[in-house]
Amino acid sequence: MSILLKNVQLNRVPTDIFIEGKYIKRIGAALPDVADTVIDGTMKAVVPGFINGHGHAAMTLFRGFGDDISLEQWLTEKIWPYEKEWTDEDVFWGVKLACLEMIKSGTTCFNDMYMRFPAVRQAVEEMGLRAVLGATMFDYFQEDTATRYKRETLQTLTAPRSDRISLSIAPHAIYTVSARTLQWAADVAAANDCLLHLHLAETQTEHANSIKNFGLSPVRYLHSLKLLSPRLVLAHCLYIDDDEIRALADHGVKVVHNPNSNLKLGSGHVFKYTEMKAAGITVSIGTDGAASSNNLDMLEAAKTASLLQKGWRNDPTAMPADETLQCITENGADMLRLNTGRIEPGRLADLCLIDLKAPAFTPNFHFVSNLIYAASHGSCVDTLLCDGRILMQNRYVPGEEDILRQAANAAQKLEKVENKK
Amino acid sequence: MSILLKNVQLNRVPTDIFIEGKYIKRIGAALPDVADTVIDGTMKAVVPGFINGHGHAAMTLFRGFGDDISLEQWLTEKIWPYEKEWTDEDVFWGVKLACLEMIKSGTTCFNDMYMRFPAVRQAVEEMGLRAVLGATMFDYFQEDTATRYKRETLQTLTAPRSDRISLSIAPHAIYTVSARTLQWAADVAAANDCLLHLHLAETQTEHANSIKNFGLSPVRYLHSLKLLSPRLVLAHCLYIDDDEIRALADHGVKVVHNPNSNLKLGSGHVFKYTEMKAAGITVSIGTDGAASSNNLDMLEAAKTASLLQKGWRNDPTAMPADETLQCITENGADMLRLNTGRIEPGRLADLCLIDLKAPAFTPNFHFVSNLIYAASHGSCVDTLLCDGRILMQNRYVPGEEDILRQAANAAQKLEKVENKK
Repeated sequence: MSILLKNVQLNRVPTDIFIEGKYIKRIGAALPDVADTVIDGTMKAVVPGFINGHGHAAMTLFRGFGDDISLEQWLTEKIWPYEKEWTDEDVFWGVKLACLEMIKSGTTCFNDMYMRFPAVRQAVEEMGLRAVLGATMFDYFQEDTATRYKRETLQTLTAPRSDRISLSIAPHAIYTVSARTLQWAADVAAANDCLLHLHLAETQTEHANSIKNFGLSPVRYLHSLKLLSPRLVLAHCLYIDDDEIRALADHGVKVVHNPNSNLKLGSGHVFKYTEMKAAGITVSIGTDGAASSNNLDMLEAAKTASLLQKGWRNDPTAMPADETLQCITENGADMLRLNTGRIEPGRLADLCLIDLKAPAFTPNFHFVSNLIYAASHGSCVDTLLCDGRILMQNRYVPGEEDILRQAANAAQKLEKVENKK
Repeated sequence: MSILLKNVQLNRVPTDIFIEGKYIKRIGAALPDVADTVIDGTMKAVVPGFINGHGHAAMTLFRGFGDDISLEQWLTEKIWPYEKEWTDEDVFWGVKLACLEMIKSGTTCFNDMYMRFPAVRQAVEEMGLRAVLGATMFDYFQEDTATRYKRETLQTLTAPRSDRISLSIAPHAIYTVSARTLQWAADVAAANDCLLHLHLAETQTEHANSIKNFGLSPVRYLHSLKLLSPRLVLAHCLYIDDDEIRALADHGVKVVHNPNSNLKLGSGHVFKYTEMKAAGITVSIGTDGAASSNNLDMLEAAKTASLLQKGWRNDPTAMPADETLQCITENGADMLRLNTGRIEPGRLADLCLIDLKAPAFTPNFHFVSNLIYAASHGSCVDTLLCDGRILMQNRYVPGEEDILRQAANAAQKLEKVENKK
């Protein structure tokens, strides 16, 4: 299978891109018109497919179910009691909805943690996206609970999967997983050369409880457990100091910023991007699950990240557009250790074609500024390729009507359960 | 001319809406199918057209021209030297581009201040939107400059205009307009029953200079000049204290929050929405010009406003979705003293049809949450009516290709002038 992108704008210069199998093979002017599929790129720009650094895909089923309430009420009344009700099939359709939404907004790869791994994996396989999947581990400081989740995690390692899907070991957080289970997870990740993916330093409460319960702040606690490593991917990291940033950098830890989720849940608004970048930390951006951020739009997340840096610092030069685009492409790929996120021969063909015939791209002084600050939403994506396959063309994804209907049906269970209470 | 919206969802209930001339006439189930135009509203929701509380439409021409630089450098190197170069025709196409962008993102009405009023007015008339237009006044504390701008302002009062266009008197700010000219503007606004529209308390620098130069904070300075009145519309108001909020409320002053502009220019992130609402101030939301916020998308501005409140307060219950929608509809209409912003018989037919066949509206537990937090972008708008006329249907606006081309041509002047420097 080969695809030729004809006359598409790469860094504002019209060019052709030839894709063979999964890979970008050639980039240049006027490549020969010999390919199984030719896509006209006139008035379209090409960027790497976006990489969603942190989320819980199946939680699209919770979209709009519990907004504008306190974090504790949200978790204990609106999320945890209902999550128990999901079947494999519900989760399957929730993930399909998430994949559809990601495809329609330009995302080709995402880093996920959730329950019911086989259903998640199956949905991602069918939708054609690239993903790093982890089965969330809890133990609530109980030995028997730990045993159950460890078994589930070990099962993920032997499950069949295509090479679009990588695995992570995904303990939930330091307030839901004991030190022993965290260390077990780190050992399994090391033995299998997987990423270790967890939430950290998301709220003031978590920070305060960490000091109260462990005598250490969250990052220092992880450090004391010897969990800091280049394999570690931390979501959030709002409550960390300069010494902790230094420690994360020294150990090659990666950080995912989820600005819309942090704002919406009232977790906080001060993310130290500038300091982390200066220290050499690879920072990527995520949407978090649709239960907290409500959508999975990486361009929106990117704009919020950039504007928030400028806003709380009173500094319009903070996190410029080009760096922000890097966060959702190159940095995401580096964090997930994938050969994608850049448009070069030899890279995986995960590509996004942007429709330039829109007010947001007029005038066109600075394409990346227009993409991040003006378009700032995935609706500008016209065509999406992942792994050398076309997942969306002219904004149409095959089977989308069925996914919307099935996911809506699965989510109705929430209202039924609510009415019984 | 009559239009029937058939089977459209209003507050999640399918209904029909009959429009005659400029007005909504009847709302109800199964209205008779007798109208000049019938629009099928199946799988569409209807909301009031959005109202953009503050902006400078023609500045779409500056989109992406000066990002990620300091506020002073931006104004003195990227905006003011170039604005002098605009001709009437440039401004005309800049405003047409802005109107096109607003139509495509669901805005039916906007509150504008800019130069070259006749060109602005002509573009808005042709595009069919509703607007409150003001000719920006400066005097830089010079008598002769004041005389020139006063003359221009008086000319706007006698210019021909349709009843879709109202006028404001629009002195720029307290640091560019003298006390005498501010008072002259207030007198003219009172005599002609116009709104008085100005920027206030946008930056820390403005606040500090106000105290230095006038011995009073910005709001107290306006109060000392007797400018506070129900006619006064203030954009920004980031740097105000509780007593000043009380004074604005007591005098019926209206406030426009421009969150994306405030963040992007590094002006600040602490807008006291909750306190203003509690005091009884009518708060609306604006995008500001595309030179600072980069787009004119009111749903994006609404989401940022809501999330920012929750974020800096560490309070997820702040500014819930329904209140946020009110800000960009009812509150905008009340502020601009227009019979719109609500869907009721007798109101002007300024309406937005939202396409529900999208991941952002699946599942559909809470339509307004999905609109503000998940769709969060004007691309969900399928059809737009203003003043009882269809401005967009199936996302197509007649003449849009020509507007994009002409506006891009006009903006090219910036690069030409830059190259000469």
